This record gives sequence, C-alpha cells and structure tokens, in this order.
Amino acid sequence: MQQNLRIPGPTPIPPRVAEALARPMINHRGPEFAAILARVTERLQRFFQTSQPVLGFPASGSGAMEAAIVNCFSPGDPVLAVSIGVFGNRLASVAQTFGLAVTRMDVSWGQAADPEAVAARLAALPTVKGVLLTHNETSTGVTNDLAALAAAIRRARPDALIVVDAVSSLGCVDLRMDDWDLDVVFTASQKGWMVPPGLAMIAASPRAWAAVERATLPRFYWDFRAVKKSLDKGQTPYTPPVNVYFGLDVALDMMLAEGRDTIFARHQRVADLTRARARALGLTLFADPAHASNTVTAINVPDGVDGKALTKALREREGVIVGGGQDRLEGTIIRIGHLGYVHEPDITSCMDALERQLAALGHRVPVPAAES
Amino acid sequence: MQQNLRIPGPTPIPPRVAEALARPMINHRGPEFAAILARVTERLQRFFQTSQPVLGFPASGSGAMEAAIVNCFSPGDPVLAVSIGVFGNRLASVAQTFGLAVTRMDVSWGQAADPEAVAARLAALPTVKGVLLTHNETSTGVTNDLAALAAAIRRARPDALIVVDAVSSLGCVDLRMDDWDLDVVFTASQKGWMVPPGLAMIAASPRAWAAVERATLPRFYWDFRAVKKSLDKGQTPYTPPVNVYFGLDVALDMMLAEGRDTIFARHQRVADLTRARARALGLTLFADPAHASNTVTAINVPDGVDGKALTKALREREGVIVGGGQDRLEGTIIRIGHLGYVHEPDITSCMDALERQLAALGHRVPVPAAES
Repeated sequence: MQQNLRIPGPTPIPPRVAEALARPMINHRGPEFAAILARVTERLQRFFQTSQPVLGFPASGSGAMEAAIVNCFSPGDPVLAVSIGVFGNRLASVAQTFGLAVTRMDVSWGQAADPEAVAARLAALPTVKGVLLTHNETSTGVTNDLAALAAAIRRARPDALIVVDAVSSLGCVDLRMDDWDLDVVFTASQKGWMVPPGLAMIAASPRAWAAVERATLPRFYWDFRAVKKSLDKGQTPYTPPVNVYFGLDVALDMMLAEGRDTIFARHQRVADLTRARARALGLTLFADPAHASNTVTAINVPDGVDGKALTKALREREGVIVGGGQDRLEGTIIRIGHLGYVHEPDITSCMDALERQLAALGHRVPVPAAES
Repeated sequence: MQQNLRIPGPTPIPPRVAEALARPMINHRGPEFAAILARVTERLQRFFQTSQPVLGFPASGSGAMEAAIVNCFSPGDPVLAVSIGVFGNRLASVAQTFGLAVTRMDVSWGQAADPEAVAARLAALPTVKGVLLTHNETSTGVTNDLAALAAAIRRARPDALIVVDAVSSLGCVDLRMDDWDLDVVFTASQKGWMVPPGLAMIAASPRAWAAVERATLPRFYWDFRAVKKSLDKGQTPYTPPVNVYFGLDVALDMMLAEGRDTIFARHQRVADLTRARARALGLTLFADPAHASNTVTAINVPDGVDGKALTKALREREGVIVGGGQDRLEGTIIRIGHLGYVHEPDITSCMDALERQLAALGHRVPVPAAES
C-alpha cells in the first residue's frame, strides 16, 4: 500500500530529490562538494532571511539545540526558557543540562506565548543573557508570533540573545532572522526542506558570534567557529551527510522555482484545508485558533474514540501515517503534518481516510447540510 | 566521466544500497522503522563482535569521539592518548577540550604503537582512567595491533577504559570487542559499511556502562542512556537518519551474505594488490610494512612530483579520486582508500591511472622485466 506520510517530519521526499539521494558518492573535500555547499548555503540564507552564513551539522534538530546552547552560553548564565510544549521543554532541558540558570516560563499547551507576558518576566530578570523560544511547536500545533515576541524581548533586554527553534517552521512560514533581530535560528533537514533527516542547519547573528567568543562551555563537535572556518574553504570540519546535501541542492532548486511567498501561501492553504475538514467532521482543534500552525495540526481525539486505535486503523487500513500525541498528550490528540512536499490532494485523501476510520470507530460524523 | 572514488571515506555505494536510499520516507516512530533498527543493531553486533547493543547517533565519526568522552569521563580524569596520526590527535583534542587530564603519547607517523611502550607509560600513570586508541589511522595508513595493545593495557591497568576509534577499520578488518575486552568502540557509516555519511555507531562494555553512571561531564545529545532506553522500545531519542538506515539494512544483508571472514580476506587482497602495484611503480609506502593498513594505503609522492598536481591530474584526466595528505603530510603523500564496496578491478584501474599520470608528471617508472 502506498503510504501518505502525514507526520510532522520526517516528511515525504519529492521524486527528483529521491533520485539525487541515490547519486554516486563523491569526495567531500573535492570541488564538486564545495560547489554544492556554496549553492546550498547561499540559498538557505534566503529562507533564513539573513546575511549570516548558515552552518550545517551532521545531526538531528536536537543536536542543533545543543549546538546553540554550548556555543553561546557559559555555566551559570541566566536564561529565560519560554516553553509552549514538548520541544520548548526540550530546549530548556538542554540549557539546564549544561548548567545554565534557567528560569522557565511554561505556557498552557495549545496556547502561544504572549509577548507582553514575556517582557514582564524579563523585567524581573535584569541579568538575563538569553531567551529561548520555539517558533512552531510541533507537539501542539501552535505557532508563536515570533516577530512580536522578538520585538518585546528586544525592548525589555536589548542585549539578550534570542535563540529560536525553527525546526518545523523554517522554509514553510515567514521567518526574518535579520529584520526581526534574532540571534540564533536553527532548523533540520527532515521538516520543510523535503530531504531526509541528518542535517541540522543553524545561523548566528553578529551579537551571537560575539557571544561565541566569550562563552566558556566546552565544545568540539558543535563549535560554530570550526564550521565557519571550513565553510570559508568550501568544506566542513567533519564528514558531512553528503547525500542529504545532494537532495537539498535539488530541493532548494524546487523551492526557489516555486518562490518563497508561494511556498508560504501553499502551507497556509493546506493548513486551512486541514482545519476546515477537521471541523466539518465535528472535531475540535487542540491549538488556539489565533495561533494554529501552518505546518502541523493537532486534532483532539473525540470522546469515545481510542486515539491509539485510530492511528493504527489509519496506518493499517488506509496507509495514512499521522502522529500521535507526545508526552501528556499521548492518546488524546492526533497530529497531521502538512509541511514540505505537501499539496491539497495529500490532505484531502488523509482527511477522507480520517472520516472513514472515525466512522468505523463509532464517531458520529455530522451529516453535511444539503446544498441549497 | 565515471568516477573511481578511492578516498578512505566516504566510500562508493553499491547499486542495491543506492536504490534503498531513495525509498519513500517512513515514520521513524512506526513499526517499519522499529524492524529496521532491530535488524541493523543485531547485525552490527556481529561485526563489533559484542553482546552489547550498538547505539546509533545522527553524526559523523568525530561526533562519536565526543560521545565516547562525554559519556565515560569527568573533568580532570587522567587518560593516556596514544596517537599515531591526525585522528589520534583529534581524539586527544576532544578529551582535552572537555577538561580531561590528557597525557599524550605520540608515535612517529607511519609507525604503529608498541604495546610494551604503552604499558611502560601506563606504569607511570597509576590513576589513569582510560586509554584512547586508534585502531586504523586513516591519515597514515597504519593499523595498530589492537589485540596486543588491549592485552598490554589490561595487564598494566586492569580497570582503565580502553576507548577505540575504529572508524576506518570496523567491518573491514577483524575487531573482537568482547574477546579483546575493549570498552568503547565506534565507527561511522561512510567507511566500511557502504552507505553514505550521517550515522555514527558506538558500543560500550559493561565496564564502560558503569562509568557512564559515574561520569559527570554534562551530556544531552550524546547520552548513551537515552539512546539505549529508546532502542529497547525500537526507537531513537531524536530523529534518526532514516535513509542511511534504509541503506545500512541492505548493506548488512550483502555483508552477511558475503561473510565476515570473506570480507576481511577481500580487504587483505585489495590492500596487497595496492601495495604491490605501488612498489612495481617504484614508489615507497609511508607506513611501516609490518603495520600497513588493509583499508587505506599511503604512498609517498616521489621526488620531483608535485603531490597536488598528481591528485588533480588523477581527478581531472582519469576520474580517479584519491586522498591527499592531511596536516603536515599535505602534498607529500597520496592516500588510496580500499574499504567497503571495493574489488580488484577498482584497484587495478586506479593504479593504471596512477601509472599514467605519474609518467605524465615526469616520474620514471621502472620498466618491468621481460617474462622469461
């Protein structure tokens, strides 16, 4: 059975990208890889909307979290970790693991962080060195208003580093690193980029680069400076995930051909379609509608339906793979990913399958009103 | 021009593996990936020759170095770093970066470490917590006698952790983790495993697992315990490089079908052929012949020939990609990789090309004696 992979990453690979993944291996220190690395870096900058180099690490998105923390901070540094879900908690945990003095600001799951509330917390933290944010929280389907948050933080603490987990937003929704004055922004290949997992991508502002020089946490593999130094020579300090770069080179061709704003509009359309179909099935959405994500939709499992049975039925009977709830949301929500290589028919067939399997599990689907 | 990729990694990908790399993406938390992970882990154990689980990290081999250090040691721990080249130096540097008290034992490049000399150094280090070793030094083409080294270390310091960089040896030459009583052994996907870079693999002995519990260096991404806990549930803590696993699943099929000893014998044959052809061209080998590697051969660039011009001519005129010298060997040696998916014809065509390009650069190749 052909699968409709509708988890919020890893995401489906377009055929042209899949072909590139199978290309013959090359020397990662030769001119061919140097050309790919230069092309990829320059085009990633257009999506990060930054003039700073985008650094690649062979790693998952969680590796990028660790890279952000160990490059920019020292033990004992006070930071505010604004968490709106599982991945916000993870970033806070990384900071705690490395000895930062973490003040946690936990927002109710399903809600976005309120910029004024964040500014108010910062007012009580005069020595804060950084604020850790999630742009799009994959576990709850909520997108923070990053521009407003960054502006509020900058007003409250002009010198604080704004660290942004953009793993499941970048390339899909607007993120203006330089305009919004963000300091560290990272993403991962298996989300909006239409390539397999294995490459974490991260950019740092001049303010962050200055912090890298001052920070005292030990770092080897994650050292921004080593990657930057190699990048200037068309290389990477350690063997890069060459075939992910093959794929990303093609995927970025496709993305530039489609156009950044067109991609963002497509993500808006498929998200709107997902939400509309869910509501038409009499389902409620987990996320505050004002901040519902354009890359992943969390749907409450209706009363009387077993969430695990639902995802299993979708997988086994329909070939539709959706995400379950994570952590304390296990069994209570399903998550439908709509990022990267996704178009309306992918969502229509997913929601048709959901309709059938909900019915099979006893959910009473409202009868659509007859057209008049 | 078809390339003959003869660097010591990344290595060529067999067609069946390349096909697998392009397979449709799957859910990394679903039953299909769990089955792949279980199969891959069990078969990797046969090559590590260990009953311990082999842990996968989305990373390069240098990531595995960092993982080994931060899991097993605490700041100030005395360790002996036995270096026979660039990668031995790198492992020592990682240990220093994380605050270990590193005693360096630098062996002349081209030579192997002498077990009795290592034991003698350990006699002067009564509190040593670990010994860092390289099995096969990719930069010099030397293979240490790991069994003898481990035995000598164990006699001198029964409780010291023996940490082994087996990045460019495992899967190609014999390494008996349990029999030789090694504590941490790691490798990387782009070497003997015939798949692209992006997956580091690492196993720990019961002695090392006990050290993991005591060690105080902070760790998040590299935490052995997190990977082990997820592995027991058929998962990984962070998104794995799914398509490298697709490839590795097929590559391990091929490796088991060929047989471990047959693979080791093939590496011996292609290495012997490489060395014999080099000598027949009047060239000298960089490595001590008693410890010449079966996975990479370092050849001294002959007097009067420009090493960089030679690698460029091989690349541009012959499509043969060889490695240059690293660090202080830059320009003075070339390195021919013969590991993973390599057979005699690959070496014959490489050495034919080397013969032609050396001649073109003015090297006088000895005339073979007429057959009698």
